[in-house]
Amino acid sequence: MAEKDKVTIVLFSGEMDKALAALNIAVGAASMDMEVTIFFTFWGLNVIKRNDAKVRSKGILRQMLNFMNKGGSKRLPLSRMNMLGMGPWMMGKLMKEAKFPTVEELVNLAHDMGVKFAACTTTMGFMGLTKDVFLPTVDVYCGVATYLVEAKESKVTLFI
Amino acid sequence: MAEKDKVTIVLFSGEMDKALAALNIAVGAASMDMEVTIFFTFWGLNVIKRNDAKVRSKGILRQMLNFMNKGGSKRLPLSRMNMLGMGPWMMGKLMKEAKFPTVEELVNLAHDMGVKFAACTTTMGFMGLTKDVFLPTVDVYCGVATYLVEAKESKVTLFI
Amino acid sequence: MAEKDKVTIVLFSGEMDKALAALNIAVGAASMDMEVTIFFTFWGLNVIKRNDAKVRSKGILRQMLNFMNKGGSKRLPLSRMNMLGMGPWMMGKLMKEAKFPTVEELVNLAHDMGVKFAACTTTMGFMGLTKDVFLPTVDVYCGVATYLVEAKESKVTLFI
Repeated sequence: MAEKDKVTIVLFSGEMDKALAALNIAVGAASMDMEVTIFFTFWGLNVIKRNDAKVRSKGILRQMLNFMNKGGSKRLPLSRMNMLGMGPWMMGKLMKEAKFPTVEELVNLAHDMGVKFAACTTTMGFMGLTKDVFLPTVDVYCGVATYLVEAKESKVTLFI
Repeated sequence: MAEKDKVTIVLFSGEMDKALAALNIAVGAASMDMEVTIFFTFWGLNVIKRNDAKVRSKGILRQMLNFMNKGGSKRLPLSRMNMLGMGPWMMGKLMKEAKFPTVEELVNLAHDMGVKFAACTTTMGFMGLTKDVFLPTVDVYCGVATYLVEAKESKVTLFI
Repeated sequence: MAEKDKVTIVLFSGEMDKALAALNIAVGAASMDMEVTIFFTFWGLNVIKRNDAKVRSKGILRQMLNFMNKGGSKRLPLSRMNMLGMGPWMMGKLMKEAKFPTVEELVNLAHDMGVKFAACTTTMGFMGLTKDVFLPTVDVYCGVATYLVEAKESKVTLFI
């Protein structure tokens, strides 16, 4: 049996528009029978945080960071024209009108189609994040070595 | 006859500096006899909008978006040090002095060298953009599937 | 003898978080016996500027640019939550606590592990930067053609 073509995406950015682009490529590739992995790292981890997560971290700095960087698919800003949160609301309205799925819906769709979700343990370490903060859609918790093993076998490698 | 090596770039960003990087790589690759495709999506569509385009979209939100996100190669901000438009003007001056081409010149040069320009129909859909807004240099209007077919045959895949 | 798998990264961004991601992937790949090249271009050049460099450029605009865009691994902002420099300081503290290396340490580590550092001469040209501004860790000064020759032989190509 022939091996499937692979697509490996690093999602470093935590913005709604970039998350949509990453998930859209992932879902497209999965529907073309390609094997897709998304490695969520740094701000990108916000995309797969539970919207109702309570982060309990130690130390005042880490608490500040996690208060400001709450995350969850419903709290993602836009990379442009964020306008204190009006941008994402506006974009959400426009996409709904065009029957385009939300980040949350795309995360679930991607997961159902077999896209593999990997969360970067290095970032989790210094941000003081634990597994219970994340969606059950996360398949693997891993570091850069696991990413590279996948990436070097992939036809398409992207950093978003 | 041997097939040409392919380079496939997603241009998601609408900033002048990122557009310059993408176009510079594209022109370089084309001059090395590689086959290059740039997929313009999201804010990246601004790079290939006509500078004199009049966007007529329906609905107040879409009109606001297209008013604020006018686009065209002469209206691109910088990703850093934009300073309300002074940054791009300054960068333009410096590049002119160094005899480096503008975004507009690079778009035309790339097109003349056979770089394929693809515009993302999904973004056009929810932003309410029609084909008449874009430069005649656009070769294809397509979705993520067409991108992936090219990308998986490419030696170099980038997301900018 | 089999050829090594290659990883080629364009580091376009000059932010601390993106530099950390690029260097972390580079160090990871090098430790897995892959051949890694990082092409520093545009704002990314700031990562490999000497912290004590004195840029002497001609023309008032170029002087302004180089004053505002001083660079050096200790002066990199964050792509999010920069908060006038408080963000990078905070992030630095958190990473130190987690025993994660700084940008400077990662640059040296990467270099020691054989990661190739290439600086983009085109950007240097219009920004008015000369070789004495950069760290001795830079291996090559080159343009887009050299990048493409490496990239098309690489298993993993990223634009960060």
